[in-house]
Amino acid sequence: MKANVHITLKKGVLDPQGKAIENALKTLGFDQVKNVRQGKFIEIELDEKDPKKAEKQVAKMSEKLLANTVIEDYQIDIQENK
Amino acid sequence: MKANVHITLKKGVLDPQGKAIENALKTLGFDQVKNVRQGKFIEIELDEKDPKKAEKQVAKMSEKLLANTVIEDYQIDIQENK
Repeated sequence: MKANVHITLKKGVLDPQGKAIENALKTLGFDQVKNVRQGKFIEIELDEKDPKKAEKQVAKMSEKLLANTVIEDYQIDIQENK
Repeated sequence: MKANVHITLKKGVLDPQGKAIENALKTLGFDQVKNVRQGKFIEIELDEKDPKKAEKQVAKMSEKLLANTVIEDYQIDIQENK
């Protein structure tokens, strides 16, 4: 089973990397860009057949290691048929 | 309009960061983890109302700046009602 985890900065937390991308895009002439935020995307292959158990485990991983829950949110998508 | 861009390493390209996460998870006792790959996730707010135009523009941004197309793939999701 495969799990996709999106880790994004919480609203209100400054995102200098996103801001840098935004400025670079504007410099390249993409004037229609209003705001850019950068996050992480982690694909995890799991040896687990129960999607509910898989989701619980990935939530634990996110809390313990993947995300800094003080400033980051995480969102888990379990892909059952992969 | 909002666009989400996923940037992932192409298959076959070594992913040391993903490997490091995988090893860290195993050290923490998550033995069911088989494989981890890490990518980037970029949210772009655009001042553009036509979803097709928005997608074209974001594809150009990805080719020019966001992704290194030699080793990375990108995938664009346009969110029309945001």
